[in-house]
Amino acid sequence: MKHAESHPAWLLPSGFEDVLPARAEALEHCRRGLLDLYAQWGYRQAIPPLVEHLESLLTGSAADLDLQTWKLLDQDSGRLVGLRSDMTPQMARIDAQTSATHELRRLAYAGTVLRARPDLLGGSRAPFQMGGELFGVAGPEGDLEVLSLMVESLIHCAVSDLLLDIGHVGISRALADAADLDDVPRAELLRRVERKAWQDVRVWLREHDCGSELSADFDALAHLQGDFGVLTLARQRLGHYPAVGTALDDLQFVWEALRARYPHLTIQCDLSEIHGHRYHTGLLFSLFGPQRGDALASGGRYDDVGAVFGRRRAATGFSLDLKPLLRKFPETERAARVWAPAGTDAVLWQSMQDLRRAGYAVIQDIARREPPDLSILREQGFYAILTAQQDGWQIQRLES
Amino acid sequence: MKHAESHPAWLLPSGFEDVLPARAEALEHCRRGLLDLYAQWGYRQAIPPLVEHLESLLTGSAADLDLQTWKLLDQDSGRLVGLRSDMTPQMARIDAQTSATHELRRLAYAGTVLRARPDLLGGSRAPFQMGGELFGVAGPEGDLEVLSLMVESLIHCAVSDLLLDIGHVGISRALADAADLDDVPRAELLRRVERKAWQDVRVWLREHDCGSELSADFDALAHLQGDFGVLTLARQRLGHYPAVGTALDDLQFVWEALRARYPHLTIQCDLSEIHGHRYHTGLLFSLFGPQRGDALASGGRYDDVGAVFGRRRAATGFSLDLKPLLRKFPETERAARVWAPAGTDAVLWQSMQDLRRAGYAVIQDIARREPPDLSILREQGFYAILTAQQDGWQIQRLES
Repeated sequence: MKHAESHPAWLLPSGFEDVLPARAEALEHCRRGLLDLYAQWGYRQAIPPLVEHLESLLTGSAADLDLQTWKLLDQDSGRLVGLRSDMTPQMARIDAQTSATHELRRLAYAGTVLRARPDLLGGSRAPFQMGGELFGVAGPEGDLEVLSLMVESLIHCAVSDLLLDIGHVGISRALADAADLDDVPRAELLRRVERKAWQDVRVWLREHDCGSELSADFDALAHLQGDFGVLTLARQRLGHYPAVGTALDDLQFVWEALRARYPHLTIQCDLSEIHGHRYHTGLLFSLFGPQRGDALASGGRYDDVGAVFGRRRAATGFSLDLKPLLRKFPETERAARVWAPAGTDAVLWQSMQDLRRAGYAVIQDIARREPPDLSILREQGFYAILTAQQDGWQIQRLES
Repeated sequence: MKHAESHPAWLLPSGFEDVLPARAEALEHCRRGLLDLYAQWGYRQAIPPLVEHLESLLTGSAADLDLQTWKLLDQDSGRLVGLRSDMTPQMARIDAQTSATHELRRLAYAGTVLRARPDLLGGSRAPFQMGGELFGVAGPEGDLEVLSLMVESLIHCAVSDLLLDIGHVGISRALADAADLDDVPRAELLRRVERKAWQDVRVWLREHDCGSELSADFDALAHLQGDFGVLTLARQRLGHYPAVGTALDDLQFVWEALRARYPHLTIQCDLSEIHGHRYHTGLLFSLFGPQRGDALASGGRYDDVGAVFGRRRAATGFSLDLKPLLRKFPETERAARVWAPAGTDAVLWQSMQDLRRAGYAVIQDIARREPPDLSILREQGFYAILTAQQDGWQIQRLES
């Protein structure tokens, strides 16, 4: 384990990084602001562990999170445990364990999640995940609240020109249900829909004798994306499925309310979008910044996740990775820095402590009893120095 | 992966826990306070990754951290990586990578560390570690600063009746050096000293023909523990080792300065204490609360750790686990909670948003358009309700 010549110990595993002070302070600033925002909406922070038994971590969403989850053997129990790759299932577990049956429960969280593989090539394997989850509200009023809080989060992080993309897994599911299939072929069909491989869907439906009417409905679904008018079009084309009508009611409710609350927010829908449909059960949403590209925040309804913990609860929520949002911040405002000389003089000590309590950052230069060139201190961002005067130590402001 | 009957998914691995809202808010409150304190002393936060290559994590301290470190295979590189079990070596790496040669560098950190095995039977495997590290100061003035900041940390956490235990690995090392041994037998001897197995030390010295004088000196060392007077006694008994004289000068310097700064702090020394001596190179310190028992914070000098990263730097620091300190806190003061009824009324929305911006926590009761029994809301800790009045929504305080 010697590395005297080269320094391979310097290299971090791919997808991991050090967050150095300027960025760490921006992250801390933003983290505090969001947690305070969530508290103002009644979302109280809970801190789940980084390590859990695999069954708990992969509940209800095994297929989606399994490959991303780092597994390891717990020497203590001989059981397989995993590093959390998403905190939402942990919140569902905490809700199931600690909430009363009909209680509305709001939980917030902030912490690192770990990925065995990055989501994107060269991407992070340690996103800093924050989010909020609402348990016990089955109707779209619940989705509206978490959608609003998701939008508020990005506004707080000073992201402008937001685009919200909404969808509803209930629409594709209603069409798949109409095909009256067993579980396995139904899942096959929905996988094709998830990939938006519409030609494949058409062929698959023909091979499984699902009828030309259903095939036409899937064709219609493939084109249902765009602005508010798409909801009307969808009612005309697919309104004969009762579950589609309900889904469209939900979409219309949140759309109209969000339009009133956030007039500058662009909203669009893609009614065939069902990413994470093994996990989600209703509305789906993704929020994009001015570059569009990858979603900055996302979420949706996932009413069944708590079942494995013995409590099937209505649930909806959102999460975001704080790290990509930090670029948008100017360097966090820091306390004014005061230079102090070396020495253990009791009066100097008292002066330093008084200044710290008054909110200054006092940095004792343990290498020097006299201040260095003041222009150097100014360059280093110092605001003032502590100097010995006849009547004790005085703060002397550096002129710029 | 079905658990319809029993709920094993509820159980967390031993040594891991959920931190639920009341405690999570206390932790957050305390975490913020300490990070702000560290910033006021010039210690800027850095956030190292949870996962690193094993060589980086175990540098200079392999024997001490190896068994505690959870290892896993990185699918991406095929290399072994580890979960950090201590953030101090990570800070040494960051300092080595990012500091100028003669620069004083102060770093602070706050984060979870993970242990493959708990330190104590039934203990935590996920301490929340916070601390500060000072790089580039070789003299005891550096140790004095981090010692002071360690004491300030526990004062900030409202721990009273503090006991500081200090030692210096240089004393035992000076005696071992006098035996003029090769590396392997020298390590054998120091392991016996670390265990304070003085009878073993005596036998070992005799078997290795180290002479009766040295044996008498180790006997003397075994009894050098107690108050300030022990330093004088140590000078009389072991002052003929030059390195012992230097170590005693360091101990005396920090002792006298701390006594002046913190008159209520009890200080004692144990000059034979050398825990972590494979890692530490100078002063060692542990800070205890009123129950004594396990140290609440500890640290020491570790000048050589950066060598593996190509930069041998003077270094000293301390760390603590925040979780055991939380007991000492009353439940964190929270924002006044205001109950609001269900509904998407634009004026209600505006009133809720205004109150949130004014610092209230506004919780919309999505299940109800009319407030429930006010005595229930009072019991739930609500401060006021929002009610519809002729001229809009008004906050109505709940009388207690």
